[in-house]
Amino acid sequence: MTKDNRLKIVFHGANACNFQEGFAKILGLDVEIRSLSDSLDGVLEYEDYSNADVIIGTKLDGQLPAPKALRLYHAPAAGTDAIDVNCLPANAQLCNCFGHEDAIAEYVMAALLRPHVPLELADQGLRKGQWSYWAGRPNALRTELGGQRLGLLGYGHIGKAVAKRAKAFGMSVNVANRSTVKDPLVDQCFGLNDLFAFAASSDVIVVSLPHTQQTEGIVNADFIDAMTPHAVLINVGRGPVVDEKALFDALKQKRIKGAVIDTWYQYPNAQRPECPPSQFDFSSLDNVLMTPHMSGWTAGMLSRRQVTIADNIRRMVKGQGLLNCVWPIPHHNFTHSSS
Amino acid sequence: MTKDNRLKIVFHGANACNFQEGFAKILGLDVEIRSLSDSLDGVLEYEDYSNADVIIGTKLDGQLPAPKALRLYHAPAAGTDAIDVNCLPANAQLCNCFGHEDAIAEYVMAALLRPHVPLELADQGLRKGQWSYWAGRPNALRTELGGQRLGLLGYGHIGKAVAKRAKAFGMSVNVANRSTVKDPLVDQCFGLNDLFAFAASSDVIVVSLPHTQQTEGIVNADFIDAMTPHAVLINVGRGPVVDEKALFDALKQKRIKGAVIDTWYQYPNAQRPECPPSQFDFSSLDNVLMTPHMSGWTAGMLSRRQVTIADNIRRMVKGQGLLNCVWPIPHHNFTHSSS
Repeated sequence: MTKDNRLKIVFHGANACNFQEGFAKILGLDVEIRSLSDSLDGVLEYEDYSNADVIIGTKLDGQLPAPKALRLYHAPAAGTDAIDVNCLPANAQLCNCFGHEDAIAEYVMAALLRPHVPLELADQGLRKGQWSYWAGRPNALRTELGGQRLGLLGYGHIGKAVAKRAKAFGMSVNVANRSTVKDPLVDQCFGLNDLFAFAASSDVIVVSLPHTQQTEGIVNADFIDAMTPHAVLINVGRGPVVDEKALFDALKQKRIKGAVIDTWYQYPNAQRPECPPSQFDFSSLDNVLMTPHMSGWTAGMLSRRQVTIADNIRRMVKGQGLLNCVWPIPHHNFTHSSS
Repeated sequence: MTKDNRLKIVFHGANACNFQEGFAKILGLDVEIRSLSDSLDGVLEYEDYSNADVIIGTKLDGQLPAPKALRLYHAPAAGTDAIDVNCLPANAQLCNCFGHEDAIAEYVMAALLRPHVPLELADQGLRKGQWSYWAGRPNALRTELGGQRLGLLGYGHIGKAVAKRAKAFGMSVNVANRSTVKDPLVDQCFGLNDLFAFAASSDVIVVSLPHTQQTEGIVNADFIDAMTPHAVLINVGRGPVVDEKALFDALKQKRIKGAVIDTWYQYPNAQRPECPPSQFDFSSLDNVLMTPHMSGWTAGMLSRRQVTIADNIRRMVKGQGLLNCVWPIPHHNFTHSSS
């Protein structure tokens, strides 16, 4: 094989380039690999992009050159909303990645345990000789997570990973999902036409839905009003699934106990590297834990996704069917075993 | 039944008195229940103690009046080291309680997740518009708990409860125990003659051993030196199981990554309500999380123990064998199903 005939793989943009280090070794094929900037302004970047056999990237639109030789566009993420499939050449496939669910489940469990196990306050006290949480003191009794009812809005990779851990703590697990869920981890399943009963059924609601026309604002003021006043809302799906104003108002008016929000309504960009995550001043509230869309971003997630992408490229080379295919919409979807 | 013939139950001391509220209802028998101070200085307290059929308490020694009518001394805790069985009348039995293991397992899992999910720092940053942990940033990659190796020193109620949760996170579980453990939750079991290999085998060591002649100082300087430098030690057993000076020196010299210590070497008393937990200045260290012996103290633990104690009193009344019997040492030990 001469150099010119080698498979051309490009990592496009800063996000995708995180997945390049060590990728050649995992792939184990004689290929050409390039890292390209988001705006393709480096010398030859435009040409490298146009001629790529495989693009690993998060954004495809009409502003970018047409990738005319493309056979596989691989998102290094689950969400592919910024990838316009109309810009893919005929016969090119779009695949995505999971592998973030274990990371997100760890984030969710840490957030769930936090109000029950006040480690920071206890540490700050004992360093000053104060034994406020000492066993034997009646007003020091902690609560337990184990007896609580977990409500999972969405039961995909993330919901399942959270359910598995929550069950080991003894929590009961309720699910609201488009299709009925039959899973020994799930105690009660609600349809999407029964969302208020679902909202009322749980002490903690974890939202892991993607952002689609159907899910936008599905957690609205009425949903939040249906929750019990002592309940906590956790959003690790996408910001707009939870109505921005309804969430802010409910927290400000303390209609629910609190929220843990990782996915937001406004994100920084090059022009504005520091920005608030919402048009409303969530930082003025003391009943919200605010994190910057971090829940899935771990070294373990990165290496699991590299394995998925490398596996799909080897399958393509061998002429085998691809896994995690998003476009063309497959009849049966086969997902990668590590995802 | 006249009033004088009713069963006389006393809760003795501030710790035991935590378990009285709501107890009569759980028990459901027509009995006489009294709460007595630790030093029995109230009017008639001395007499109530001496005539009790059942004492629920944590301390029995020769300084206290002989409970000559006693049939059952029930500790509302697992540890019975402060109860001198030589002070029990013939035919009286000593029983203990568990029900703390779920609470302690929640504490341990929260402590395990803490370094991997920096919720507090992320929240403090985002409130100022800083997105330091934002997904997509290479230097923001978190680590995961799931890939780590857990080492359980002791595999009783607490060890099992921690193992169950840790497994759901994908951790591998190593155990060091007096007797060989055969449990699908356990990947590798070490004998107590193989402690250094055990110490080297894990990324986190959780000590849940009781304090006995055999366990005192079992985690000594040599054990800590056998741990990997990135390992973390968690003690939820009893302070003296871990050698006080060896632990302090190892942390000060950063020979291990850190420690989470809940059980200590010095405790407050009435004369000294605020006191440091050790003769060494642990509060000068930044690689230890210090908590005031709080891990098992939850409302759930309290109500599970009330159920155990009430169940044993009903068994005694019916002439049935008691559960969780500590003295006389039973041939077979039956433990309460809720424990």
